[in-house]
Amino acid sequence: MRLAAWSKDGAVSFGVVGNDGALFDLARRSNGTWPDLAAVVAANAADAAAKLAKGPPDAHIDDVQLRPPLARPGKIICVGVNYPERNAEYKDGSDAPKYPSLFVRFPGSLVGHEAPILRPPESTQFDYEGEIVIVVGKGGRRIAEADAHAHIFGLTLMNEGSVRDWLRHGKFNVTQGKNFDRSGSVGPWIVATDAQFRFDNLEVITRVNGEERQRGNTGTLMFSFAQILSYVSTFTALEPGDMIATGTPPGAGARFDPPKWLVAGDVVEVTCDAIGSLRNRVADEVIG
Amino acid sequence: MRLAAWSKDGAVSFGVVGNDGALFDLARRSNGTWPDLAAVVAANAADAAAKLAKGPPDAHIDDVQLRPPLARPGKIICVGVNYPERNAEYKDGSDAPKYPSLFVRFPGSLVGHEAPILRPPESTQFDYEGEIVIVVGKGGRRIAEADAHAHIFGLTLMNEGSVRDWLRHGKFNVTQGKNFDRSGSVGPWIVATDAQFRFDNLEVITRVNGEERQRGNTGTLMFSFAQILSYVSTFTALEPGDMIATGTPPGAGARFDPPKWLVAGDVVEVTCDAIGSLRNRVADEVIG
Repeated sequence: MRLAAWSKDGAVSFGVVGNDGALFDLARRSNGTWPDLAAVVAANAADAAAKLAKGPPDAHIDDVQLRPPLARPGKIICVGVNYPERNAEYKDGSDAPKYPSLFVRFPGSLVGHEAPILRPPESTQFDYEGEIVIVVGKGGRRIAEADAHAHIFGLTLMNEGSVRDWLRHGKFNVTQGKNFDRSGSVGPWIVATDAQFRFDNLEVITRVNGEERQRGNTGTLMFSFAQILSYVSTFTALEPGDMIATGTPPGAGARFDPPKWLVAGDVVEVTCDAIGSLRNRVADEVIG
Repeated sequence: MRLAAWSKDGAVSFGVVGNDGALFDLARRSNGTWPDLAAVVAANAADAAAKLAKGPPDAHIDDVQLRPPLARPGKIICVGVNYPERNAEYKDGSDAPKYPSLFVRFPGSLVGHEAPILRPPESTQFDYEGEIVIVVGKGGRRIAEADAHAHIFGLTLMNEGSVRDWLRHGKFNVTQGKNFDRSGSVGPWIVATDAQFRFDNLEVITRVNGEERQRGNTGTLMFSFAQILSYVSTFTALEPGDMIATGTPPGAGARFDPPKWLVAGDVVEVTCDAIGSLRNRVADEVIG
């Protein structure tokens, strides 16, 4: 089941995305039980939401603007290097790392499906990174790997858009290059996963203007979804709605010679068959 | 003027800390205008708050538990290396960096004044870092250095508590070692600053069990408060209540030979005359 947030005629709402783009408005149908999609996630109410998505739909997906599924997740944690070929891309001769590298994005750095992503005037090195994102359902601390999947509410996609020359501005950490406002995207929706869902055979593909640039399968990850979730929960209590971006496959624009940076008008599409496609056009940011 | 958040008899409130620890409860006195201290900051209402802090006080600071002044700041950004002697401490022969190194803490990693800070069982390398914290008042993007001070609502203190052997777990980034739940503290309150406030001559001192370990003056910073605020706002829109920890002076426990790690019972006190003292006792975290 797919859950999305959207705006239409200036009003925000959220609900279930049915077949053929039919939208079932849960703000209306739940009689205020859930003020937003974050409340559905917090209540682990995917099944209850599905039951309300019956009868004539309330809108069609072509008539709304999709928004990031969760407006302000408590945490957006990103795994830096997780596909094995990508560790090799760094060409620093290092062995596979023992633990995942983690950094943080702020909600303001991400737009929804089909909203423009912005290349800031401070850089010409604007790049894409297609990723699968875990949406935490049940919270917890020090979650065992064996229990981890039960803490996953669902999955979404991210273009973890990066401003490359700002990643290494400081002595440590990539914060600034990962957090230009509206430089990335998340969505198009959250696919709720159940106990039978297989997290270890998901293919994620990134295309730019229709040309495939990245392709990876979660079966090859250095750190599986369960391992990531367990590891992160060692130090911080996970809460419903927290998001963890699970890393990007090799083939970001920076890895080509010469690099293939994004420019205005480029269309970036991140696809995973089990989730959907997240598509955004690049625009130059206009100041003032 | 000092603004604090607290709990008393199980109820949370906030208000002005007057002379001799008198507390003026703004939740009550503002008739609901401000639901919490974040609302006072967002309204840039220090002067209006001060006007309500008259007459007989509502409580005394000794009878409440202080909480982090802001429960969930939108962003908590920390500057990694900012006092010049601390760059030298790294002994990597690197020149002074051109830009600040930035990382992120989650609100759950910080407790209030006098609450225990927790050494997790995963590490024995628990360390202190005393810092002055900027609390953003008026938000903005691409703020000029010359205008930066007008965007500061006030200052508070942080013990930017760190789990050293988890800082370098990953290939990049220090996220995990900086984000163990309740491993640091913030407070005791926010001191509102006005247009005459001098940010460039503040002395911050960290003491452990009364012994001075760190001392630094903001006049020596590689990146002044105005420069940090301007730089951060280049990539992300600052919002009211965002916090920026401005770096720690040399003398963290890791820098001694042998290192002086914190153990249960140690008392860490971060002091700046213009702000106050933030004091926390170390406790071993008990699981389950």
